[in-house]
Amino acid sequence: MDFSTYFPVWNKLTPVQQNTISTSAVFRTIAQGTVITGDGTDCTGLLLLKSGQLRAYILSEEGREITIYRLFEWDICLFSASCILKSSQFEIMIEAEKDTELWVIPAEIYKALMEESLPVSNYTNEIMAARFSEVMWLIEQILWKSLDRRLAAFLLDEAVLEESSTLKITHEMIANHLGTAREVITRMLRYFQNEGIVKLRRGEIEIINTAGLRTISG
Amino acid sequence: MDFSTYFPVWNKLTPVQQNTISTSAVFRTIAQGTVITGDGTDCTGLLLLKSGQLRAYILSEEGREITIYRLFEWDICLFSASCILKSSQFEIMIEAEKDTELWVIPAEIYKALMEESLPVSNYTNEIMAARFSEVMWLIEQILWKSLDRRLAAFLLDEAVLEESSTLKITHEMIANHLGTAREVITRMLRYFQNEGIVKLRRGEIEIINTAGLRTISG
Repeated sequence: MDFSTYFPVWNKLTPVQQNTISTSAVFRTIAQGTVITGDGTDCTGLLLLKSGQLRAYILSEEGREITIYRLFEWDICLFSASCILKSSQFEIMIEAEKDTELWVIPAEIYKALMEESLPVSNYTNEIMAARFSEVMWLIEQILWKSLDRRLAAFLLDEAVLEESSTLKITHEMIANHLGTAREVITRMLRYFQNEGIVKLRRGEIEIINTAGLRTISG
Repeated sequence: MDFSTYFPVWNKLTPVQQNTISTSAVFRTIAQGTVITGDGTDCTGLLLLKSGQLRAYILSEEGREITIYRLFEWDICLFSASCILKSSQFEIMIEAEKDTELWVIPAEIYKALMEESLPVSNYTNEIMAARFSEVMWLIEQILWKSLDRRLAAFLLDEAVLEESSTLKITHEMIANHLGTAREVITRMLRYFQNEGIVKLRRGEIEIINTAGLRTISG
């Protein structure tokens, strides 16, 4: 399947618009672990995922991270081109969590398209509302859910995502997803292990009591 | 000044669109302290402020609050009509912090306009990006700034907003802005008082050392 299959509202574009965007989009393969953005002034462009998995996160001055949302195939990443959005002054980092195939759509091409095409503008509104919704969910989690519930929910989500009850993930990585320190995660995982809910091995966490995790996650 | 002065991109609407929106908008006066939204299913409509001040906040199951952003004259509140945005499933409460004059634009009217008018759709994108930016700032504050810095920054902002170094605000109200408990705010304010930075009176906080507050806020 090619670019036109993956680009949203493709059929609502004029032939000229279709030609402009498909000739300017660049197909790239990104190796797992690569950080794609960003130095703040840079404007990578929109990312349209064909396969793989990206993680959008923010970074504190001290180097702490928290995952904002994930992107999967068919998803569009708008904030890798936040320069096209007026009044948007934050920086979201993007990292490939798996080997990922994507198209990069140059920011200025998308911006011009959005300003002349009603379907593209409306679609952009939809993506932004969806991301906004995810970010509001995150705020509620950070403010009002205790870490044991957040960690339990995270492990359950990961098991679904990886289609496995054995997760190959370090405590450091989990801490970076949840915006906390590695030691805090290690302590909580050991508590889960004592409760017979997970089994810890080097670089691996096996979920042995899914129902128990569900109870904790609320 | 009337509705057409306050409605953004008014001059880019067709006469028919102008007529539809100005005849459907309802002018209302909201008394200070009134909570405007929302029961989640309800869709109040867009709010366009002529004067006054609104506070957008979220509420936990236990009744804790945190302020997401404020709205002033000329501002548009999109999330009082979040039903028009697909995939938006969070609930933002809106409260009048001052006596407020505003127009309510019915959600379905705005939605129809957004779907047929490119300027309105692009403008909606801009508002959403601006709010997104504020919410990202909030996440960074919650995660990575300690409460003393957040409280100092809040008091400085309030002094500018109220054009006074004496703030008529309770510790409970501050706690609701910052997503914490009243006791925590009281403790921190007493610490500020001991440092000679503020003077506390019943229902009032006087800032007596602005430079000191600035130093704390970072």
